[in-house]
Amino acid sequence: MRNFIIDTDTASDDAVALVMALRQPDIDVKAITVVAGNVPLDMGLQNALYTVELCGADTPVYAGCAKPLLRELETAQDVHGRDGLGDIGLHLRGRAPADGHAADALRDVIRAHAGDITLVTLGPLTNVALALLREPELARRVSHCWIMGGIGSGHGNVTPTAEFNIWVDPEAAKIVYESGMKMTMVGWDISWKHATFDAEQAAEIRQIGTPLAEFVIDIQATLTEFSMTENALPGFDLPDPITMAAAIDPSIAEYKDYRVDVTTGEGLARGITVVDVLGVSKRAPQMRVATSADRSAFVEMLKASVA
Amino acid sequence: MRNFIIDTDTASDDAVALVMALRQPDIDVKAITVVAGNVPLDMGLQNALYTVELCGADTPVYAGCAKPLLRELETAQDVHGRDGLGDIGLHLRGRAPADGHAADALRDVIRAHAGDITLVTLGPLTNVALALLREPELARRVSHCWIMGGIGSGHGNVTPTAEFNIWVDPEAAKIVYESGMKMTMVGWDISWKHATFDAEQAAEIRQIGTPLAEFVIDIQATLTEFSMTENALPGFDLPDPITMAAAIDPSIAEYKDYRVDVTTGEGLARGITVVDVLGVSKRAPQMRVATSADRSAFVEMLKASVA
Amino acid sequence: MRNFIIDTDTASDDAVALVMALRQPDIDVKAITVVAGNVPLDMGLQNALYTVELCGADTPVYAGCAKPLLRELETAQDVHGRDGLGDIGLHLRGRAPADGHAADALRDVIRAHAGDITLVTLGPLTNVALALLREPELARRVSHCWIMGGIGSGHGNVTPTAEFNIWVDPEAAKIVYESGMKMTMVGWDISWKHATFDAEQAAEIRQIGTPLAEFVIDIQATLTEFSMTENALPGFDLPDPITMAAAIDPSIAEYKDYRVDVTTGEGLARGITVVDVLGVSKRAPQMRVATSADRSAFVEMLKASVA
Amino acid sequence: MRNFIIDTDTASDDAVALVMALRQPDIDVKAITVVAGNVPLDMGLQNALYTVELCGADTPVYAGCAKPLLRELETAQDVHGRDGLGDIGLHLRGRAPADGHAADALRDVIRAHAGDITLVTLGPLTNVALALLREPELARRVSHCWIMGGIGSGHGNVTPTAEFNIWVDPEAAKIVYESGMKMTMVGWDISWKHATFDAEQAAEIRQIGTPLAEFVIDIQATLTEFSMTENALPGFDLPDPITMAAAIDPSIAEYKDYRVDVTTGEGLARGITVVDVLGVSKRAPQMRVATSADRSAFVEMLKASVA
Repeated sequence: MRNFIIDTDTASDDAVALVMALRQPDIDVKAITVVAGNVPLDMGLQNALYTVELCGADTPVYAGCAKPLLRELETAQDVHGRDGLGDIGLHLRGRAPADGHAADALRDVIRAHAGDITLVTLGPLTNVALALLREPELARRVSHCWIMGGIGSGHGNVTPTAEFNIWVDPEAAKIVYESGMKMTMVGWDISWKHATFDAEQAAEIRQIGTPLAEFVIDIQATLTEFSMTENALPGFDLPDPITMAAAIDPSIAEYKDYRVDVTTGEGLARGITVVDVLGVSKRAPQMRVATSADRSAFVEMLKASVA
Repeated sequence: MRNFIIDTDTASDDAVALVMALRQPDIDVKAITVVAGNVPLDMGLQNALYTVELCGADTPVYAGCAKPLLRELETAQDVHGRDGLGDIGLHLRGRAPADGHAADALRDVIRAHAGDITLVTLGPLTNVALALLREPELARRVSHCWIMGGIGSGHGNVTPTAEFNIWVDPEAAKIVYESGMKMTMVGWDISWKHATFDAEQAAEIRQIGTPLAEFVIDIQATLTEFSMTENALPGFDLPDPITMAAAIDPSIAEYKDYRVDVTTGEGLARGITVVDVLGVSKRAPQMRVATSADRSAFVEMLKASVA
Repeated sequence: MRNFIIDTDTASDDAVALVMALRQPDIDVKAITVVAGNVPLDMGLQNALYTVELCGADTPVYAGCAKPLLRELETAQDVHGRDGLGDIGLHLRGRAPADGHAADALRDVIRAHAGDITLVTLGPLTNVALALLREPELARRVSHCWIMGGIGSGHGNVTPTAEFNIWVDPEAAKIVYESGMKMTMVGWDISWKHATFDAEQAAEIRQIGTPLAEFVIDIQATLTEFSMTENALPGFDLPDPITMAAAIDPSIAEYKDYRVDVTTGEGLARGITVVDVLGVSKRAPQMRVATSADRSAFVEMLKASVA
Repeated sequence: MRNFIIDTDTASDDAVALVMALRQPDIDVKAITVVAGNVPLDMGLQNALYTVELCGADTPVYAGCAKPLLRELETAQDVHGRDGLGDIGLHLRGRAPADGHAADALRDVIRAHAGDITLVTLGPLTNVALALLREPELARRVSHCWIMGGIGSGHGNVTPTAEFNIWVDPEAAKIVYESGMKMTMVGWDISWKHATFDAEQAAEIRQIGTPLAEFVIDIQATLTEFSMTENALPGFDLPDPITMAAAIDPSIAEYKDYRVDVTTGEGLARGITVVDVLGVSKRAPQMRVATSADRSAFVEMLKASVA
């Protein structure tokens, strides 16, 4: 068994990633920590708790930061629906998180499993940054951190230069990227290139017929609309699940080592993940960046997790 | 008895402020939390521990952040001496801080004395910001926060626009200034206008003849040199002690309510405390700014504390 | 006779400054160049032409830049009236400027009177910067440049940190401030401290009874309202005229040499004139900054010019 | 005959582009304007004059701006050699430019051939921006402007985010990009993808055996070294010539319309050409961006020009 801890701003694609991890037989998800991002904190908490319940799991879910370190929260409810899960009428109320702050849960779980704990981040990096500010040594205790965030190559989705998770809290991202943790960034480019589902491909998964299979497709209702009209894609794409897939089985993607900086300015200078392809900054690489992924292997893993 | 908690990057003027608080009969200093600033964290810790010991106190001293939230640490050892206490040969080694992180100590003390706790900050606001990021509600529990930092009116001391404490960690300052805490900023202008000591004035205090009287003057050795050559002052000035004096007896200074913003850019745009004198930003004041101080009352308080 | 060239975004206080220069017996105003600022370019042109006509002068008036070098134009029509001259019904239409661009007029006049030409700037520095970009050597040919702009000490009027003329085109200001010209900055602080007129003081000038005396007071209608409600002043103040007065007779003000930088950021970091009072930047002063003025001498000069 | 005007910071690849234009039978190069960039202004002037002479042309060459609008000049002499032409011992001294400033030459030529003039820019956009600041209407009079500069897609060559010409004077680039001119940006990505020459390919051109054939290859000596060690290319690449080729025959490249913004910050936020691929900025495209090029057609055109 491998130990995972997952930080998430739980909306429609996060939920699929949670399902994949929770249903993976050889993975023990020690805790889920929730951060404000796609949706306000309370909504993300309910979405995570609902998903855990649907998986029949009892993983503790912790509430973390309600806003970025320095900026006001900007959500993506136009992308994922007002409730973050496609506004399809799910009952997303009344479930209670575990006691304690997400940053403390990150600290406690990482300390308890030092050297044998995989951290997967699916939202803005506020909770993780806060834990690292409080205890910088945690960075050395994480086996590997898989980050859904930023852009490895190409265009952004919030601004022409930035991806949502990094853009929402660039200061947190900068802290994490410079923390010395072993890290892999799975940028949004990996998702729209290798994890897009058109109507037919979505139907194929839904037809598996289990409640989980229906859940993972039905909650993409508003994302599908957004992806097609705003992102010029043939259907919804799943950034968090393909990141989770790589965390579960790193062989499904390819990687290169790069120096990656995060810009913390305003406007077009907010939240860019600058990948130094040519090494012009003359600084050593500090992380891996996913450069491509095996779509078939990803889809198979997704299908297996909801079957 | 009033409860105080003091956050400090303990160097030569911080030490005097600590003496003033620790020796005040009607004040109970619950804890001292140390942050990197004037000197590296370890040195600030030793300086605070030495000062507490010299005062015959047993106040717990906690170690906090070793660097600003987002930036590299810049110290002021050219101002306060390599050891921060004037390099006069004090034995500043081997004393042990209390267990636990300064940010947790701030939380615990503030929670334990909610509504009856004065916070005095003498250094960069990293520790305080970290505590607020982890628990924003702490802001409402602090009776009043007295901040030595920034400029109320006039020129800076690190750059033409910025004062050292704010400049070192402007992001932390921004978090604190926007936290909703009841606050008073005592800028460096209050110090150089009302808390400067020339050779004669310094001698007058030293002649009180107690170990504390000698300590508070002797440790200003390098500060005196710096203040006269770089700041065009007739001798050393004591920003932290005059802030502590106002925290102990608010009537020794005058104040106005202002909206104050902290700039988080680079160069000349780093760490300015922008006081909106005319209200052109059309935003309500969120804090008090000291506009002048009663030098005589301050000097009397200082003398009494070392007598 | 001394030669002057005046660059102006002609609104209510510029007009008074023009009157003062045009009516000065020992000064020959070779040209007036107009720039967008307080009002759009066309309106500033008409206002300058009207003022020249009212003075019975035939000074050529040239049209310059219709917007700042890099930013969109922001006017101050809330301050000076929609027509810039107090909206008192003056006939401000139909007068024709001289042929040629203001930047070329600046070049030609400065070249023609190299070493014997005083430049007075009353608006954003766009025209002057453009002339300097095209011919950097002009800087050496100007005897002295008097700049109404920025803040020598204290608060701004557009943002808490910035004065209008510099804020509108900070990039132009930076070019001029770093051009090597001999310069004096007369900041807005000199105006609100030494050139404010309450109702009684204004009436005293108006009672001189000449058309010019009535003009210089009547066009301050909207400025008066703005100064009292937004700037906490007892009446209107006259930044451009007190600058012109100092250009005409430098002995009416006091000065210090300073290094002054202009910030070119956004928000609170836009258009600050950073005066390095303590020399912390370790760079040599490049200009003079007015530190006070003789109000009586200024008022006498103003009265004489409209009598 | 089509009329061209070429603005260039003449170094090794600019010279090749000049050869291509000057030798094109159906193109009349009305003027060459030189700007500081790859090399200081005087050196660029000599290099342009040498190249014109070598082509047996009498095109007037004008001197323009010796530094960017707002920043200090940074050259690329590590890339192109100290003399900009590979340090192969060419006699690059003593030739005299035409009288007048490059910005005035741009204005005069564009006015004289309004609607029938192609502008090709091979360096920082300082001269062009200055002409546009002085006379914004010039933008409408240019038939089309071809810009070698920026990045259409992928990584930079000076910083990870920026290409040299735009990075050197981003403010000038911003002025040009927002001028309303009809424009095509040929980014550095087009060059390293479609205009790289390894040793064999270079030899094939040199073996044409004319003085021009030897010149265009021999002057790439230092560029070859730099391209292989720093840019991970198999040999030198020719950004300016492939841009000139597209200006001469637009069918050799493919294009898409995009909104492109230039960032004017510092560090990683300096001089990025932000191509809004998905239209997330909701602003209409204002220019074309080259997306690929026909290498064979380019090489044939280059060979023909030196044969």
